[in-house]
Amino acid sequence: MNLKVVLKIVGRVITMEAFVLCLPLLIAFLYGEDITPFMITIILVLFVGIILSSINTSKEFFIREGFFTVALIWLATGFIGSLPFYFSGYFSSFADCFFESCSGLTTTGSSILTNIEALPKGILFWRSLTHWLGGMGVLVLATALIPTIGIRTKYLTQAESPGPVFSKLVPKQAQTSKILYAIYCVLTIAEAICLRLAGMPWYDSFIHAFGTAGTGGFSNMNASVGAYNSMTIDMIISVFILLFSINFAMYFLLLTRRFKDILKSDELRFFLAVVFIATFIVCINIRHLYPDWVQTFRYAFFQVCSLISTTGYATADWLYWPQICQMIFILLMFCGACAGSTGGGMKCSRILVMFRVIRREIHHIIHPRSVQVVKLDGKVVEEKTIHSILTFIGCYFLIIMAGAVVVSLDGFSFSESFTAALTCVSNIGPGLGAFGPAGNFSTLSAFCKYVLSFCMIIGRLEIFPILVLLSPSAWKNQ
Amino acid sequence: MNLKVVLKIVGRVITMEAFVLCLPLLIAFLYGEDITPFMITIILVLFVGIILSSINTSKEFFIREGFFTVALIWLATGFIGSLPFYFSGYFSSFADCFFESCSGLTTTGSSILTNIEALPKGILFWRSLTHWLGGMGVLVLATALIPTIGIRTKYLTQAESPGPVFSKLVPKQAQTSKILYAIYCVLTIAEAICLRLAGMPWYDSFIHAFGTAGTGGFSNMNASVGAYNSMTIDMIISVFILLFSINFAMYFLLLTRRFKDILKSDELRFFLAVVFIATFIVCINIRHLYPDWVQTFRYAFFQVCSLISTTGYATADWLYWPQICQMIFILLMFCGACAGSTGGGMKCSRILVMFRVIRREIHHIIHPRSVQVVKLDGKVVEEKTIHSILTFIGCYFLIIMAGAVVVSLDGFSFSESFTAALTCVSNIGPGLGAFGPAGNFSTLSAFCKYVLSFCMIIGRLEIFPILVLLSPSAWKNQ
Repeated sequence: MNLKVVLKIVGRVITMEAFVLCLPLLIAFLYGEDITPFMITIILVLFVGIILSSINTSKEFFIREGFFTVALIWLATGFIGSLPFYFSGYFSSFADCFFESCSGLTTTGSSILTNIEALPKGILFWRSLTHWLGGMGVLVLATALIPTIGIRTKYLTQAESPGPVFSKLVPKQAQTSKILYAIYCVLTIAEAICLRLAGMPWYDSFIHAFGTAGTGGFSNMNASVGAYNSMTIDMIISVFILLFSINFAMYFLLLTRRFKDILKSDELRFFLAVVFIATFIVCINIRHLYPDWVQTFRYAFFQVCSLISTTGYATADWLYWPQICQMIFILLMFCGACAGSTGGGMKCSRILVMFRVIRREIHHIIHPRSVQVVKLDGKVVEEKTIHSILTFIGCYFLIIMAGAVVVSLDGFSFSESFTAALTCVSNIGPGLGAFGPAGNFSTLSAFCKYVLSFCMIIGRLEIFPILVLLSPSAWKNQ
Repeated sequence: MNLKVVLKIVGRVITMEAFVLCLPLLIAFLYGEDITPFMITIILVLFVGIILSSINTSKEFFIREGFFTVALIWLATGFIGSLPFYFSGYFSSFADCFFESCSGLTTTGSSILTNIEALPKGILFWRSLTHWLGGMGVLVLATALIPTIGIRTKYLTQAESPGPVFSKLVPKQAQTSKILYAIYCVLTIAEAICLRLAGMPWYDSFIHAFGTAGTGGFSNMNASVGAYNSMTIDMIISVFILLFSINFAMYFLLLTRRFKDILKSDELRFFLAVVFIATFIVCINIRHLYPDWVQTFRYAFFQVCSLISTTGYATADWLYWPQICQMIFILLMFCGACAGSTGGGMKCSRILVMFRVIRREIHHIIHPRSVQVVKLDGKVVEEKTIHSILTFIGCYFLIIMAGAVVVSLDGFSFSESFTAALTCVSNIGPGLGAFGPAGNFSTLSAFCKYVLSFCMIIGRLEIFPILVLLSPSAWKNQ
């Protein structure tokens, strides 16, 4: 392990974070609020960041170092993100600050706040900005690092070879990354403008655009998006949620006019089919709660989009909807968005591959001598990739179960414990019961808050980077 | 598809079932109860059975036919098992009878009865006998058919080659099957004698011995084993539950004095370790509910054994135990017993292989050039087997989720729906909430009862035979 190079990169990233922190500082200043929480954080982070950046080291950097770097970056930025919250004095413990910061950066959107509207605008801006930054960070991950261990996000990267991936990809990525970030920024600004036109104040527009872009779910309102009670706003957010939860490679294809390739995407079709079917089922089951089909569709569509994309905004307390709706929502939470998007969850492509592997297994039993390959987008999925996907899915369940055991120690029921862990590992936001859309995570013990924060990072990094970090053999110098 | 040979075999099996039905008829006669329910069933079944058995057919019989036969045998015997219940008039609908019969045969032990003690002794004897028959059926499956698609039960069979398995195994199996059944019978009778000595009446002893042998869980008491309130009885049942949930190949090794091979079994050690750790955690958390450590251990150990073995007997209503205990129990329900036993669930060996695959995946990320194999009992697990196991685990979750969606249509909460599906697919018995150890499944709609009955059979046959039956391509004549 070349720990020095890892620390050097982490140093660079946190130095950048210090500069980004100037933005909420500016907002706090403009609204005449206390800017010291941000000042102290910036000074501290700059100090540590510059020291780490100036480490002299060899350039030895392999996949192991790559995973390590990514895991440490998320832990470090999560820690730093919590400092302004802590110094602001509005949070009752450091565990709360860390939970809120991790929830922001990992684009989860679970909150320990009981009265969001009581917080200063600068702090809330930072809280939502972490979603946007996290979403951006995820795009780097999803297009550069993760492809080497699971589903490959085609077109944008061709990271086929094992070995020194991170260092090799960065120069290659340079141009495509710029396009990616441009798309991300343009979509975010477009949403903010749409929301402003629909009647939201500019400040709220950006808060919700950040929350949508990162598929996070933090709002500056206690009642989430429901507070505006506007059909136009609901529909704008629903549509942008969908735009942010499809593979960003699609936009690349759109820009290069490869429309046929977009239509060929199995994952996109699967994702849209799931959204359509889920909305249909929910509509039928909540029809009696709303005056007409249009209103029914509005609430059903918003909630389905919000949950499958792992955003977690709410326009209604769906804990009072029929049980079948909650069951459908939990399935959506497992499924998650498309690979190569800012969304979390297991990802549609993995689910789709699993379905096809099962179909192949059945076919193989019926025709034992046949040899069949699993295809995605008309291309053969390698057996190695299938193996990784199946292992990933197994790990996913195990980590959710482990998280649920920890939460149950606090005396929460099975459905609460299980969905709290699920919502954190899948980076969604709300769970069931006390953790429902109208509830929050404030009643958890500090220990549980730390564990769930960790679960969010595990989920966000698609598990393996953190497992590598926890593996003793990774620490050996060989 | 050679459907004729399938029907011929099914015909033979149900003819045998008709003869077995004479046993509860005898019990009913001895207790002076109405014997017509059994008489009608026997006549009907003999009639159909003899017609089917006399079909003239070719001997063409491949793995596809094998899966088909097994699936149909379980569906047919489940249906026939429900007839005495239906004709007795003690059940309110045929859905109830079918649910109870499937629950018995699949050794699940979930019941729709609200007052068990009100039923005649003959009917209750048949209800428990189905557990014992189901357990015997599972042993054939687990040692002959299932090994070809998942974990191989070593020593007893060497069914390595694909192709015509069932027909090929039967002659080979003949001797080992006899030993297997002898062990099964001896253990059952030994338990009945122990229970009699501990003060249970003979009738109750056999009912509970059947329930333990099949890891089923039906009792003739409303309060299950808790009704006897005897520490000796609790401990006898706990120990026999463990004996019935370890791989029966171990007894074969014991008889042939290969003690070293027993100690080498990774699955056995894993299973015992899980039982030990779970008992320890539960003990600590329920200590305050019982007067001393001995009583605490008695209740904790019984419940852990009962649930990991997928038996489902209860001596306490553990819904009132701390949440962490319920969470542990749900983990045990997923895990299940050892392969090659009468227990259900995913099986310890599969879980163990999954853990090792995950460990290998992490190792592979850290050392990308290394090639590692997964071992079990010191022997290499083939990649094909690993693939099957991972696919199986994925299927398992999908089917539980699908079952939970159906149950939620009846308005049951997530924890109730999810655990109802889990308990049925894993062939356990109790779930959470309304389906808890003191509850029952009577409040479900007829549709849900049929779906859950089907889930039990799916789980009992380890999923794939039923998926083959449902696959359109299996029905094509080619």
